[in-house]
Amino acid sequence: MSFPVIGVFDSGVGGLTVLRAIHRRVPWADTAYLGDTARVPYGTRSAETVVRYAKNAARFLVSRERLGVLVVACNTVSAVALDVLAGDLEVPVIGVVEPTAARAVALSSAGRIGIIGTPGTVRSGAYERAVRRLRADAMTISRACPLFVPLAEEGWTDPSDPIARAIAERYLSPFGEVDTLILGCTHYPLLEPIIRSVLPVSTQLADAAEAVAESIAPLVRERAEGVGQRRYYVTDVPKGFSEVAARFLGDGIHDPIEVDLG
Amino acid sequence: MSFPVIGVFDSGVGGLTVLRAIHRRVPWADTAYLGDTARVPYGTRSAETVVRYAKNAARFLVSRERLGVLVVACNTVSAVALDVLAGDLEVPVIGVVEPTAARAVALSSAGRIGIIGTPGTVRSGAYERAVRRLRADAMTISRACPLFVPLAEEGWTDPSDPIARAIAERYLSPFGEVDTLILGCTHYPLLEPIIRSVLPVSTQLADAAEAVAESIAPLVRERAEGVGQRRYYVTDVPKGFSEVAARFLGDGIHDPIEVDLG
Repeated sequence: MSFPVIGVFDSGVGGLTVLRAIHRRVPWADTAYLGDTARVPYGTRSAETVVRYAKNAARFLVSRERLGVLVVACNTVSAVALDVLAGDLEVPVIGVVEPTAARAVALSSAGRIGIIGTPGTVRSGAYERAVRRLRADAMTISRACPLFVPLAEEGWTDPSDPIARAIAERYLSPFGEVDTLILGCTHYPLLEPIIRSVLPVSTQLADAAEAVAESIAPLVRERAEGVGQRRYYVTDVPKGFSEVAARFLGDGIHDPIEVDLG
Repeated sequence: MSFPVIGVFDSGVGGLTVLRAIHRRVPWADTAYLGDTARVPYGTRSAETVVRYAKNAARFLVSRERLGVLVVACNTVSAVALDVLAGDLEVPVIGVVEPTAARAVALSSAGRIGIIGTPGTVRSGAYERAVRRLRADAMTISRACPLFVPLAEEGWTDPSDPIARAIAERYLSPFGEVDTLILGCTHYPLLEPIIRSVLPVSTQLADAAEAVAESIAPLVRERAEGVGQRRYYVTDVPKGFSEVAARFLGDGIHDPIEVDLG
């Protein structure tokens, strides 16, 4: 007997941090990951292009897998294309913005919430809107942190690294007064130690991976024995892919299936 | 009367540093720039994907403009797809690798040549091969510098900036003994002051923009009055495009023409 699959879609490898949290939370679930590695990053594209790519990718996953839910692990797609996708597909679609904003609001004592992400995500204002829908009097501040992604991919993430530290201090200096910080990019969980080290110890971090894993757990079939099937689709396999993927997923990816989305 | 146009193709905005050098060297020439901003960056793609994108983009420019020469200002395309393009097109194709390597060899006194670039460019070994073809006994060392591109796009390029300085010092520490450093990425001219500030004063920098402008000047019609026509094609116009473009080009870009390469 076959059970519906949890589909996870991202523009690249960053969404593997979300998949990793899902694997931890519901290891018995079958999952299928699609990373649009040939067209990453989406964060610098226009909204029209992001919508086109996202529809194209989501339709592929739906055609290929018996999905029970589609998780959009990409902040950019979640910010600009989630409604379009939800209207286009038959399965429930869950983005990263709403669950992460909900987690931040739940964690926040005083409603002073900071948001960091890629330039595209921050510019969209999606997290601010989501936070304010849940807590109208929330005070939010946000900042784009373009050097954080290459820092994570370079592996310069140790809190004792003076460069990582100086970059984190510069980017996070406006956030000394927030009580909760939203990590609005799937790469940022890799930077959690350095981010924690430059913020007051009382600052809560709301990370999309944990938030999403939490929010889809109720949609997944009940506990079963063993480990579910895990399939990986990518649109390109650049050199060094498996090393980078392993850093994000924890595990290696064996035999990613290369597909052409056109 | 119409003269052939200098076509300049890059995966994004970085090639504008090359175009800028061409505008300075032969301001009267007509130019047409194509930035494949919808699919940037190429540096993380597989060679097959890069070849496909590059052919597609080059054919567009050839079909649209009366080209006299096509300058491939993208290091990744120059490294992996130049021969294919040259075989595919009727016009001469000039990449950044050969002219820059030639400039480095000419500048180098002792033949100790360093190479910095994106991970894809460095991994390709194209600059080493080009240097060694010109000077068989050259000693080369190379390093990928993935934080340099976002540093340039962030505008944190002042030599007094402690973050820019620390990153440049870390990346360039292996290059204390080279006499010439190849800037193997079109973003790096923006970082020239910081790069100079952490290297010995005697180190020569070989920059693709100047090298390419120099090498195409003989192919361009003789000096004429005034300023040539300058057209800009892009495959996507992300928010903030004109600010970033202005940083690379010096001038602003007025009315970029958005085209769909499919």
